[in-house]
Amino acid sequence: MEPVKVGLLGLGTVGGGTANVLARNAEEIARRAGRGIQVTHAAAREFNAEGIQGLERIEITTDAFEVVNNPEVEIIVELIGGYSPAKELVMQAIENCKHVVTANKALIALHGNEIFEAAQKKGVMVAFEAAVAGGIPIIKAMREGLSANRIEWAAGIINGTGNFILTEMRDKGRDFDDVLAEAQALGYAEADPTIDVEGIDAAHKLTIIGSIAFGVPLQFEKTYTEGITRIEQQDVVYAGELGYRIKHLGVTRKTDKGIEMRVHPTLIPERRLIANVDGVMNAVLVKGDAVGPTLYYGAGAGSEPTASAVVADLVDVARALTTDPENRVPHLAFQPNELSDLPILEMDDVETAYYLRMQVSDKPGVMAKIAGIFADSGISIEAIQQKEPAEGETQVSLIMLSHTVLEKQMNEAIAEIEALECVMGPVMRIRMESLSG
Amino acid sequence: MEPVKVGLLGLGTVGGGTANVLARNAEEIARRAGRGIQVTHAAAREFNAEGIQGLERIEITTDAFEVVNNPEVEIIVELIGGYSPAKELVMQAIENCKHVVTANKALIALHGNEIFEAAQKKGVMVAFEAAVAGGIPIIKAMREGLSANRIEWAAGIINGTGNFILTEMRDKGRDFDDVLAEAQALGYAEADPTIDVEGIDAAHKLTIIGSIAFGVPLQFEKTYTEGITRIEQQDVVYAGELGYRIKHLGVTRKTDKGIEMRVHPTLIPERRLIANVDGVMNAVLVKGDAVGPTLYYGAGAGSEPTASAVVADLVDVARALTTDPENRVPHLAFQPNELSDLPILEMDDVETAYYLRMQVSDKPGVMAKIAGIFADSGISIEAIQQKEPAEGETQVSLIMLSHTVLEKQMNEAIAEIEALECVMGPVMRIRMESLSG
Repeated sequence: MEPVKVGLLGLGTVGGGTANVLARNAEEIARRAGRGIQVTHAAAREFNAEGIQGLERIEITTDAFEVVNNPEVEIIVELIGGYSPAKELVMQAIENCKHVVTANKALIALHGNEIFEAAQKKGVMVAFEAAVAGGIPIIKAMREGLSANRIEWAAGIINGTGNFILTEMRDKGRDFDDVLAEAQALGYAEADPTIDVEGIDAAHKLTIIGSIAFGVPLQFEKTYTEGITRIEQQDVVYAGELGYRIKHLGVTRKTDKGIEMRVHPTLIPERRLIANVDGVMNAVLVKGDAVGPTLYYGAGAGSEPTASAVVADLVDVARALTTDPENRVPHLAFQPNELSDLPILEMDDVETAYYLRMQVSDKPGVMAKIAGIFADSGISIEAIQQKEPAEGETQVSLIMLSHTVLEKQMNEAIAEIEALECVMGPVMRIRMESLSG
Repeated sequence: MEPVKVGLLGLGTVGGGTANVLARNAEEIARRAGRGIQVTHAAAREFNAEGIQGLERIEITTDAFEVVNNPEVEIIVELIGGYSPAKELVMQAIENCKHVVTANKALIALHGNEIFEAAQKKGVMVAFEAAVAGGIPIIKAMREGLSANRIEWAAGIINGTGNFILTEMRDKGRDFDDVLAEAQALGYAEADPTIDVEGIDAAHKLTIIGSIAFGVPLQFEKTYTEGITRIEQQDVVYAGELGYRIKHLGVTRKTDKGIEMRVHPTLIPERRLIANVDGVMNAVLVKGDAVGPTLYYGAGAGSEPTASAVVADLVDVARALTTDPENRVPHLAFQPNELSDLPILEMDDVETAYYLRMQVSDKPGVMAKIAGIFADSGISIEAIQQKEPAEGETQVSLIMLSHTVLEKQMNEAIAEIEALECVMGPVMRIRMESLSG
């Protein structure tokens, strides 16, 4: 089957990321979607040609309307941002019976009602997962995963710049202006940071979250928006002393009187998981009447995290276009004829780090003997701690952390150690995972 | 349009919860699905008739095959658990061209390949969101939300009983056996806890997660499974001293040699968000090459959390049966003609708690005056702290936390306070949210 043909409007940070993810993971994506997804056309004024894969197969123009009006293109991906000409382009694409994927939160928050109505009339899809919380599939989770629930409220850290600033203020005792300047230098904040630090970006996203939670039309103009510029270092400190963290939250809640939609700095108890979402990361906490609280965490911005959501939408559209409704999503994510025969490894072949605890005689030379066995086995030790023996005891506990090692190798070393006279009983071993990167 | 007719196999904890959620949220669910979803038939030996809503509209039999063979029923929900007769019932339902929703992780992990193949042939859907991590929509997130990514690894706390035990061992310094007995008394652990504490339940779920992550057939028999029974109190303590928590993790990872599938106790750095998932809660951390790490958190078991996932699958099936593929999921979660005109509240009408900071003269009677204004306004104060003045300063900072109050009321009280002579400058106010329940 022919690949689905995609026209990309914008080849900047997210546009470039989208082209790269589609090119790099082409095989994996086709195995999932049941069909390839190919960028055939793109519109951009300026772009970093060296940073984008597969450019040679893309027809590039400076006129975005040319892509939107090209009869070959089946799906338009709008990554220009802002209201105009993004809106005109999206409306024209719908008019031309093309499906649309967009990451444009401002566009959806302000003009979504009109865009959705036009799409409904023309029978085309408009997908916007990337518009809220970047790579976190929060729209899918709320619209589909939580569809059994009466949503009671949702609260999110949905602006990475703001969260980075508040995290630095807390962790390093720095002032707002000082951290903002660093965030700008690091590229986390725009030269004009107003949209981020005054909460407008978060309000765009909250408007969408609220509508999806409660089934009301998008009403950005009624969303209360307050930024973080007035938060002082001392407030961060005092809140901490009282057991709270200050986060820039978007909150929407259903009450007897109506729906709250508000973005503002907020004290939250530090023991909540969401209070520990730091730096540029985003998270949304949703309370449903059946499921209780659920939380979704990940990168809320950036080239490839946002591209992840854009491409997920493209796969959704491709699946809908390609298969019958009953087989839209394959049971095991990949099409049944595309499952792989990769082997499942035996534990002997698995590599992890280890925590080890052993009882040893409290005599000179014991630690050296044990360390020697590890050295001979090529296992590096990150830390050794000897626990002081209790009064009158002649045994001590030895705690060791190893670097990553093949399980088989570790088993052999442990067998040697357990055979030592100075080691009592079996060695306690627990695997370790850093869960980073 | 007629409601979709559902046959429920099992009216126990999850079956009862499913009937209740469908009855209680019937209107909300129909507005989302575009069509009602009604339990018309059920099979059960024993059940708590008083705890289940809408029983009068359900035809109940003790013979599950009767429901599976009933031509009126369009979707079978299998909530019996175990291998047999669950497998025979599901296969018969498929044979009868009925769609199937199941929460049965053991069935899917062991017989999923065969079940999916049969469903594919008959053109019916088999949905199993509830089989992994209860109410967390992790299957949807991985299968659809992360479809752009090459998954690198996934790691999850996917057995609530085990996590409860390890959390109690750490928080309260208790021993394994002691906590297990309590978990059994609380109903978190079965009379025979083997399946939970030996990691078999987690291995069922990990088998499914691994297959969805990497597109390999389900291979439960190759999943390494190690329980938490040998973890001692001292290991929990020593791990803590080194900056780690011990969690019972399911880990799957793609390496050059093949795929790791393993369930075992694991030390993880305490600063990771997932290390702070405590008690009976579940969480799955997934690392994709484009999106980076994302985390999904919520209740992994229990009546209504599991029902939440079962009903989400029912909505998925109903949407596929009801609408054309292009309009499967409505843009704002609810069908366009089902949006509501609930008002968005003005901030004056919003209730929150407050953190307040003000500069006041360091003189007797000031705190009483301020407290008096709050008392007269009907605002209760949870805490007041006076920060010691710096040497030679005549002003002090007063920090107050209020209980929940209408914003309008708080604004009026603050205006009164700011008018006091003993209060310098504006009052700093930050709203507070408990984000509980």
